[in-house]
Amino acid sequence: MKPIALDAMGGDRGPGEIVAGAVEAARLGVPVVLVGDKSLLAAELDRRQADLSVVHATEVIDMHDAATEVRKKRGATVNVAVGMVSSGEASAIVSMGHSGATMASSIFGLGRISGVERPAILVELPSERGHTFLLDVGANADCRPGFLAQFARMGQVYARTMGGLDNPAVGLLSIGEEETKGSELVIVARSLIAGLPLNFVGYIEGNDIFDGPADVVVTDGFTGNVVLKLAEGEARTLFRWVKRALTGSPLARMGALLARSGLLRVADRLDPAEYGAMPLLGVCGLVFIGHGHSGARAVRSALLRAAKAVEAGLVGQIERGLEQAGA
Amino acid sequence: MKPIALDAMGGDRGPGEIVAGAVEAARLGVPVVLVGDKSLLAAELDRRQADLSVVHATEVIDMHDAATEVRKKRGATVNVAVGMVSSGEASAIVSMGHSGATMASSIFGLGRISGVERPAILVELPSERGHTFLLDVGANADCRPGFLAQFARMGQVYARTMGGLDNPAVGLLSIGEEETKGSELVIVARSLIAGLPLNFVGYIEGNDIFDGPADVVVTDGFTGNVVLKLAEGEARTLFRWVKRALTGSPLARMGALLARSGLLRVADRLDPAEYGAMPLLGVCGLVFIGHGHSGARAVRSALLRAAKAVEAGLVGQIERGLEQAGA
Repeated sequence: MKPIALDAMGGDRGPGEIVAGAVEAARLGVPVVLVGDKSLLAAELDRRQADLSVVHATEVIDMHDAATEVRKKRGATVNVAVGMVSSGEASAIVSMGHSGATMASSIFGLGRISGVERPAILVELPSERGHTFLLDVGANADCRPGFLAQFARMGQVYARTMGGLDNPAVGLLSIGEEETKGSELVIVARSLIAGLPLNFVGYIEGNDIFDGPADVVVTDGFTGNVVLKLAEGEARTLFRWVKRALTGSPLARMGALLARSGLLRVADRLDPAEYGAMPLLGVCGLVFIGHGHSGARAVRSALLRAAKAVEAGLVGQIERGLEQAGA
Repeated sequence: MKPIALDAMGGDRGPGEIVAGAVEAARLGVPVVLVGDKSLLAAELDRRQADLSVVHATEVIDMHDAATEVRKKRGATVNVAVGMVSSGEASAIVSMGHSGATMASSIFGLGRISGVERPAILVELPSERGHTFLLDVGANADCRPGFLAQFARMGQVYARTMGGLDNPAVGLLSIGEEETKGSELVIVARSLIAGLPLNFVGYIEGNDIFDGPADVVVTDGFTGNVVLKLAEGEARTLFRWVKRALTGSPLARMGALLARSGLLRVADRLDPAEYGAMPLLGVCGLVFIGHGHSGARAVRSALLRAAKAVEAGLVGQIERGLEQAGA
């Protein structure tokens, strides 16, 4: 496997956390190449007695920059990483940096898969049935019905290829089960998706994301981004409340101690660091975009996921999936 | 106070639960009149040794009917209840029945407040700062920017009048904090809301709903409905997971027992029956719409909330609020 190019300067927590995650993933057998400031990264690697290859790049797209900065800062780490995939030197990109910039750089540098008008970001949320694959979670704030149909197809391929589901159930997020309920966007998208060769279960509602009939949930990038952030924020808040309830009295504290390992497993399941980074689907190359505040664990998860996608030939699978769909 | 007209035939759980909630509210001093089948309701009241007035109506809008049925079934319970508010016999309507039908009946029978193009449904979600008032959660799947500006004004008045907040912070739900991020809808709505005389904190994101700077969160009815259902569904699922973790081993079970009262307080805070029903804001009359599966507790909460809104003169407050806004 060609190495995975990791934007080592992206993210809010500095290259230390990024390098730590990369070292962990490398020890698990994932080939990684760090893209960033050579001397800075060498020092981080030394501290961890690790030896990973580094491609030198010093320009960085700052979290406060506009995404369009990628066009100006041609030597930015994310552009260098994308260039390595484009030239075949690397098999995938992982970046915890500016997500808009990573998207822009990837779409510009790698191009779109034939039949894909708009690439989409997918997230894997924990749910009663294991996982729910939700897309788009932010690449496209305004969508046309045809985009949603393409998301449905890409989500289906992802759930099959990466989630190991033979015939994933695909649902369209709406506000009622009846065909006539919903926004103008979803009403038209529903009829388009119903015509595709996939296991379409129709509309699903907000509560179905955590406990419903669909493996893949399709929505526009505005709604999907609100859903993703709400789901993470609510889990954090509820867990804080449970924690407070469990430390509110000496008896409760003793109870919490006894129940500790079970509760930690639930907390773990809800930790976004579990999935590490989200794929940008629909570009001609593998791109994984993580939270800016990702720590070593998230970086490691992201690299493991990227390696799995390389092995599964995810991009080729999506290309074939869209051909079959006649999109 | 004129009595509150309760649609006693609405809801999935039958009139028994509705009457039980009405009796509880009446014992707390809320004047209630039941609208529904006289002999059936008399039997339910007898069972509870209670004596509430009943207005006879037998036609019901079924959960599977189209909302437009309210125009055909003129004698339906919800139409009768709306008629009582319109004629001044009742001070408010509470219905756990078909929400689309209740909305249609109310807008048609009561009319809209001047300056309100589209009435909106508001929900009070539990949050780190106590409550977050979110609207619209489903009355309008497709919105124009001007609608959102009216929602902002109505939400502000509601938070002041019913939530006791002097100067509630109003946020617009979007997918980033920067002015240029978001859908076309929110970008235009932002500039409109910024021009209103209210404490506008700009864009807020999904995670801010549970733990953020805004008391009032404004969004379109599609996104809001997804948010409401997701928030409730996620709370249910996470609590189920915590419960499983707390019963997974004998030690954990003992721990759960010790921590029980604290955990029950958290569960209680998350129970939608706490708020009972959601107001439809922007019509010339007080209308509260509840979950179809509401039990007695939700019915009681809804009636208490409706009585509070009557006493606070909520409709007049909204009328004055919109005049000031120059809407």
